[in-house]
Amino acid sequence: MAAESRPAPTPLLKDELDIVIPTIRNLDFLEMWRPFFQQYHLIIVQDGDPSKTIKVPEGFDYELYNRNDINRILGPKASCISFKDSACRCFGYMVSKKKYIYTIDDDCFVAKDPSGKDINALDQHIKNLLSPSTPFFFNTLYDPYREGADFVRGYPFSLRDGAPTAVSHGLWLNIPDYDAPTQLVKPLERNTRYVDAVMTIPKGTLFPMCGMNLAFNRELIGPAMYFGLMGDGQPIGRYDDMWAGWCTKVICDHLGLGVKTGLPYIWHSKASNPFVNLKKEYKGIFWQEELIPFFQQATLSKDCTTVQKCYIELAKQVKAKLGKVDDYFNKLADAMVTWIEAWDELNPAGAGSAALSAGSSK
Amino acid sequence: MAAESRPAPTPLLKDELDIVIPTIRNLDFLEMWRPFFQQYHLIIVQDGDPSKTIKVPEGFDYELYNRNDINRILGPKASCISFKDSACRCFGYMVSKKKYIYTIDDDCFVAKDPSGKDINALDQHIKNLLSPSTPFFFNTLYDPYREGADFVRGYPFSLRDGAPTAVSHGLWLNIPDYDAPTQLVKPLERNTRYVDAVMTIPKGTLFPMCGMNLAFNRELIGPAMYFGLMGDGQPIGRYDDMWAGWCTKVICDHLGLGVKTGLPYIWHSKASNPFVNLKKEYKGIFWQEELIPFFQQATLSKDCTTVQKCYIELAKQVKAKLGKVDDYFNKLADAMVTWIEAWDELNPAGAGSAALSAGSSK
Repeated sequence: MAAESRPAPTPLLKDELDIVIPTIRNLDFLEMWRPFFQQYHLIIVQDGDPSKTIKVPEGFDYELYNRNDINRILGPKASCISFKDSACRCFGYMVSKKKYIYTIDDDCFVAKDPSGKDINALDQHIKNLLSPSTPFFFNTLYDPYREGADFVRGYPFSLRDGAPTAVSHGLWLNIPDYDAPTQLVKPLERNTRYVDAVMTIPKGTLFPMCGMNLAFNRELIGPAMYFGLMGDGQPIGRYDDMWAGWCTKVICDHLGLGVKTGLPYIWHSKASNPFVNLKKEYKGIFWQEELIPFFQQATLSKDCTTVQKCYIELAKQVKAKLGKVDDYFNKLADAMVTWIEAWDELNPAGAGSAALSAGSSK
Repeated sequence: MAAESRPAPTPLLKDELDIVIPTIRNLDFLEMWRPFFQQYHLIIVQDGDPSKTIKVPEGFDYELYNRNDINRILGPKASCISFKDSACRCFGYMVSKKKYIYTIDDDCFVAKDPSGKDINALDQHIKNLLSPSTPFFFNTLYDPYREGADFVRGYPFSLRDGAPTAVSHGLWLNIPDYDAPTQLVKPLERNTRYVDAVMTIPKGTLFPMCGMNLAFNRELIGPAMYFGLMGDGQPIGRYDDMWAGWCTKVICDHLGLGVKTGLPYIWHSKASNPFVNLKKEYKGIFWQEELIPFFQQATLSKDCTTVQKCYIELAKQVKAKLGKVDDYFNKLADAMVTWIEAWDELNPAGAGSAALSAGSSK
């Protein structure tokens, strides 16, 4: 392969970023990503039957965790990690020791830009994360830090430093990320529109965060990236990333951090079964009508100066205000606390920066 | 010309939209717009020396107002209309009897889309105005009402009706809309990036509204589209559209109306002189640091149920809170009230819908 015929240049953040992949099957899809992923470390979270062997293509550097590993490492706290749902991916965020995470689904392939060139999605995410966000005022020419762009007339100069970027939310060509009802109504709809933009989601605005093609700064926001209780034994599925996105956005807004969406695109290869999805989602379709106003109105106290403190405070509010929607939210609120306890156990304070601990996970 | 060789189809909103153009020169630029504008009515606001004759290409249906006309029609209230500044364009909004306004600068030409096709900017604005906005929650696939797009997973169903669209803010290829300092620092920067998206600016988020390529629903938001006191005899220029944008956004948010930005692009042909611009802008560069927090915090009382009431309430707050920044804002607050009085005089309540009065301006 071309990438192997000569020494590949060192990619950005090679030793500071882990790629987290939840899966139940052999990771053949990585072949396509080889030119872009091979120099990074992978954390594979194997969902479902732990006795099954997942094959990873030659030449990738990875660690793999199945359910037995999760139970062994977390003990009773393993209850906060979902089973038989891609929500299990957040275990990978917890065991990583790196500063940055990129997570991708195993049905996501390399997309092409309008010129026909393969898109290096990870490289674009890293650019998004390493440049500031603009959550406090809208720039009509999109990302002002991008080459060929800037802040437009009328943009206050005091806000042009922007805010640190915590999250980079990438999009999908081909199969759009629709809910089951929309899938059922529009089975043939494909996303063919390549929108050449990265933008900051303004402070105070919630968005539907999809976990299919997502990167974040683990040091800035990691403990908020809990994907909730989904799948096996739970009344709901397919809201794992949504839950993480709502919590994350409220906390980013409180802490003055930025969330970007837009580029990069990946090629989402196949639609999941809308009937199966409807079964997983239908309670969520009702509940989200109460969840959105809850998160829109949620405010955190001034004492909440760390992500952990913010998250514990949010868990309390979930219990107090959403417990009456369904008892599930009481369980979820408890799991949110367990998640933070487990996070802090695996990531003791002062355990060192990403740079210091890089390599320990190899 | 091709457009004349066979009967042209009737364009959207032909009798419900006026095109407002502020100018100091012959309107040769209209030749390029002929295929798209010729069936609409134009309102030309002649700035500067009223004795000068402005030539309009053959075949356009228009009315033209110079300073003498403005003084005659408004009497002492003409003081609220700026002179020697494109802010004078808002007089055209006031004398229109149509439901929709499109305003464009005379240095804006027809842009091409990436396929090389001429962009009918007005047609795209009309589509933006006739479809709802989504100010209450962010849709990651941009405008969900556009062909090939929809609401993504996690978007509450109760919000999918959207909100009525009051404003459509279009963008510019070639010369970007930069302030004087950015023009001076980046004299060669050109906007070449065609971003194929229309999006709603979320509720609670301010944006820098540029008046170069702008459409709005006059019935929904017209009285808020006052472009302030700029130019001759004023300490500031080039903040006319910004002022209108900040006021308009606060009022749209209060009334539950939507503001869109993105497509369509026009081709902005030449940069204005950055030294002249710096002179006009420099007070604004200081002032906007206080104006943005003012507008971000502005709230309107529940009694403000019409745009006029909102605007009068905002004028009071301008006087109370910005008067101490500079005496200019006391004058501006008074002019805001005068503007509403003049608007109501020319647009008496119950004077009929756009459909009823269409044609009266011919």
